[in-house]
Amino acid sequence: MTTEPALEELLAALRCLPGVGTKSARRMALHLLERDRPGARRLSRALAVAADTIGHCSRCRTLTAATICARCADASRDAGVICVVETPGDVLAIEGATDFRGLFHVLLGRLSPLDGIGPAELGLDRLEQRLHDEPVRELILATNASVEGEVTAHYLAEMAARHGVRATRIAQGVPAGGELEYLDAGTLSHALSGRREY
Amino acid sequence: MTTEPALEELLAALRCLPGVGTKSARRMALHLLERDRPGARRLSRALAVAADTIGHCSRCRTLTAATICARCADASRDAGVICVVETPGDVLAIEGATDFRGLFHVLLGRLSPLDGIGPAELGLDRLEQRLHDEPVRELILATNASVEGEVTAHYLAEMAARHGVRATRIAQGVPAGGELEYLDAGTLSHALSGRREY
Repeated sequence: MTTEPALEELLAALRCLPGVGTKSARRMALHLLERDRPGARRLSRALAVAADTIGHCSRCRTLTAATICARCADASRDAGVICVVETPGDVLAIEGATDFRGLFHVLLGRLSPLDGIGPAELGLDRLEQRLHDEPVRELILATNASVEGEVTAHYLAEMAARHGVRATRIAQGVPAGGELEYLDAGTLSHALSGRREY
Repeated sequence: MTTEPALEELLAALRCLPGVGTKSARRMALHLLERDRPGARRLSRALAVAADTIGHCSRCRTLTAATICARCADASRDAGVICVVETPGDVLAIEGATDFRGLFHVLLGRLSPLDGIGPAELGLDRLEQRLHDEPVRELILATNASVEGEVTAHYLAEMAARHGVRATRIAQGVPAGGELEYLDAGTLSHALSGRREY
């Protein structure tokens, strides 16, 4: 549509971002060029630095620029509790919303036999090694509440049992602010069967 | 929330984009780092190149890396018709949706006396100069259908009349797919008063 290669390329590159289509890319490009060139240069640098330096923590596999991430290296955190999540984004979400002060283990996926992802593909031997090497008391299973997430949690619970480690699963039920009338059957069923003393 | 400076900076830089908040920034950063590092490097380069090279066309003021944009330099376009728009985004929108083959003039704003933006601040003398220098037959007023856009169109129509140039205004009425029942009163009123032979 435009015959400006530099603008054309910026629009195409912005569409690499998830959830960004033609119109959003146009809005973003024009905003940066017309009103926020320092922001454009800052984002350019941040992307280059992140793409070049960030890898996975050799212990918990979350995103980090170091060999061992800051959380794993933080001696003030409780090494006796490992929270297992599917993605680095889950780590950020939990850190942002809770005061959890234990360690994490990022699976970078979930068990999904139909897609050919078994315990080996998911590198679960690394988590098993941690259960063996580290003074773990509790394994918090914080995989998603999807079918694959549940399968993964079940597998991890058996692994924890083999090592005499207590396994807990994050609670399922009514989300904060949720209205019963509009909940799906699965959520409501979990909420009722998981009821607690009041 | 995280203690990774490179990731932290990327998340903050992504929030410079319009419409991107904490969660979108997280989703974008993780997508780029986990699944599309080439995309991250490409976007980094595109942003740097665009921020460093793209300026405004000295003739029509749209975004371009050259002194004169490709549209103004294209001799096959009809120099007798100038379409006046508020922003470079409007140029992209019109080029993308129509087969308009005339030239453009980008105001980079609109008349807004309350904000202290008069004809001088908007650089309307440049457009007047074009009407004087170029073989313009028709000035298409494609400013927004907002109050300021209408005021601007009115002012430009008087300017065109002074130069003996025909001024036309893009049509206002029912948008494609629009249902009369849900239209606002202003749109419906414009659609009725602007009715045409069928």
